[in-house]
This record gives sequence, structure tokens and C-alpha cells, in this order.
Amino acid sequence: MLEPVDNLIRALSRLPGLGRRSAERAALALISKPDQLAAPLLQALGEVRDTVICCELCGGLTLAGQQPCRMCVDQNRDSKLLCVVEEPADILAIERSGVYNGRYHALHGKLSPSRRNSPENLRFRELFQRIPEDGIEEVVLALSTDLEGDATAAYINEMLVSAKVKVSRLAFGLPTDSGIGYSDPVTLKRAINGRFPV
Amino acid sequence: MLEPVDNLIRALSRLPGLGRRSAERAALALISKPDQLAAPLLQALGEVRDTVICCELCGGLTLAGQQPCRMCVDQNRDSKLLCVVEEPADILAIERSGVYNGRYHALHGKLSPSRRNSPENLRFRELFQRIPEDGIEEVVLALSTDLEGDATAAYINEMLVSAKVKVSRLAFGLPTDSGIGYSDPVTLKRAINGRFPV
Repeated sequence: MLEPVDNLIRALSRLPGLGRRSAERAALALISKPDQLAAPLLQALGEVRDTVICCELCGGLTLAGQQPCRMCVDQNRDSKLLCVVEEPADILAIERSGVYNGRYHALHGKLSPSRRNSPENLRFRELFQRIPEDGIEEVVLALSTDLEGDATAAYINEMLVSAKVKVSRLAFGLPTDSGIGYSDPVTLKRAINGRFPV
Repeated sequence: MLEPVDNLIRALSRLPGLGRRSAERAALALISKPDQLAAPLLQALGEVRDTVICCELCGGLTLAGQQPCRMCVDQNRDSKLLCVVEEPADILAIERSGVYNGRYHALHGKLSPSRRNSPENLRFRELFQRIPEDGIEEVVLALSTDLEGDATAAYINEMLVSAKVKVSRLAFGLPTDSGIGYSDPVTLKRAINGRFPV
């Protein structure tokens, strides 16, 4: 294999969702269609590198020169409601649902002893500072439903025990369009425990 | 969504194997890890653009300044055997199998009336020229097993009828590690017709 091609395959295969095989296909497509595929990707990557930064307040994405981000200053959003997420990507997912209209706070990770994510490495200090300063009344934890998400939720809850703020977490249960037979035991256990009268 | 982020998602989603959702995940990973993901990808893309070209002889990939490519001049390869493929990527796939040691010829497509791929747009002229010139004794057609691949194979076979050259095509049948229940009817039909005594 030519070295530059191999480098491209390796760079692509580091992306989430791309295995070695699909990275190879993508690389060869990029090579065979330089104008349609490679040039736009090069330009978009450069543009993102040069213009996209993190909002100092919420940790979400914003453009250079737009600090804090548009969502942090949007007067039409409920400024008493704060949704805590792990990554900026989670903000986009929640926005797509169309059901939330408060502010956000991205931790940039979750508590994970194995990955050396101690509280100091995440954006907890900013979180605990803004909750009283911004007059937040409810903190909605939109965290992963794994052990690390649970640990992160427990930590935040503990830190906020003495604060006059409601802390809630997104519901656990069965995802939409999924059969019982496809559900893992933990999801099923949580769904059964959380059953509701019809 | 921020425009540069959207542009990146769109550029990524044009790659084969990446849907809108996985392009979104990849874009956000690229943004959140600029040094580990975006910088190597930017560099690899630029390097490929600047150094990787097509071999004038076989149509496969080679480096600028290496014309014809290494496989075309490799004395350890059987120069009487020519494998015809559609894309340079197919050469890599066959090389990975480790079972072929002849030369290659990439057509850069297949005959496809609907996509306006008439014979003049593909590398047929170069193919029919090199077969007598290089003293090729067998042409192995490693083409897609779809209608367009069949049409391309039929066209090449017809053009070589009067030439003193053997033309073969890769076997049709069941892929490895695949159950009968997962096979489509055409594959099964071809596998049954091609059954062999055990």
C-alpha cells in the first residue's frame, strides 16, 4: 500500500463508526473523486479548525467571536432550567428532539476513574459556580445510562444537596421502535421498575 | 447548527458508508479532538492530494514520480497474466487475498448506459492496446457480479474474440462465512449452477 494512502486510511479509521474496511473504502473514494469529495472535506475541516470554538459559559460549540454562544444569550430560552450533558454533541441531539428550551452545560466527559477523568478535569467548577449565579431552579441531568453516567449523576446530586435546586435525570426505559426481545437485561429491569399505569 | 459544523457533516456524509448520523458523530469527534483526529486527517488528505496519482499503464494508484507504478514494473510478477478490475480499490482487495501475482488493469468504472459510461469513458483503449503489446496470455476479469459487471465482461470478451488470449472471470458462488438463508436468489442460483463434486 502507498504510504500516503495508508496514512489517510489510518486517519479515517480513528473516527467513530469507521472500521478499517470502511475507512479504506472512504479513503479510496476520496482519492478517486478529489473534486467532489476530498476538496470539500479539506475545506470544511480547515474552516472548522479556524472558526469553531467552545462556548466559555456552557461548553457547547460556538463561532470565534461569538462568546458566549447564541443559546446562552437567547432570551427566548428558559434561563432557570439547566441541562447538563457530557459532550457538545449531546446538545445537538437534545435540540433535535425539540422538547427542551432551557440552557445547557457540557461537562466535556463523565467521571471515569479508569480513564483518569477526575472531577477537576471536567467542567464541574463552572457548573457549580453558575447554578447560584444564574439563579438556576432545576438541573436536568442528561447523562449516559452507564456506570460512569450514574457516577457522574450521583456526584452532581451530592454536590447540590445543600443548594436550593431541583435535580432531575432523564427517564430510563425502552427506546422507541424496539422490541422487548432486543432489550438488554438492565434496560428491561429499569423499564419494569419504572412501569406506569395506562 | 453552526454553519462550518454543518459543512463538515455534509462533506463527511458524502463518503461511502457514512450516513447523516454517523457523519454527525464523526464531525463532532473531529471537532472535540482537533489534535488527535482533525490534524492527522487534514495532513493525510493534503498529502494524498499532492502525491497520489494514477499509473498511466494500469490505472492503479502510484506516487508522483513513480510512473509506471511498482506493480507494473515488478519483475517478480507474471507479466503474461492481466487482471481487469473496475477501480484501483479492487486491486488492493485482490492483493490482500495473496493469491494473484500477475499485472492489473483498472477500467475506472464499468459499462453503464444509465450513468452514461460508454466504452470511450473507460480505459478500454489502453486495455486492448496493451494486451498484444505486452504479450498477455490470459485476461482475468475481476468485475462486479451485477448487470453492469456482466455487460462489461461481455463487451471485453467480444472485443477479444479474435485475439489469441484466454479470457476468464472470477467464480460465482456463495461467499465465505455466509449461510444459505442469508443468500439472495441470484447468488443461490449461480451457486447451484456452479456446484462441484466433493
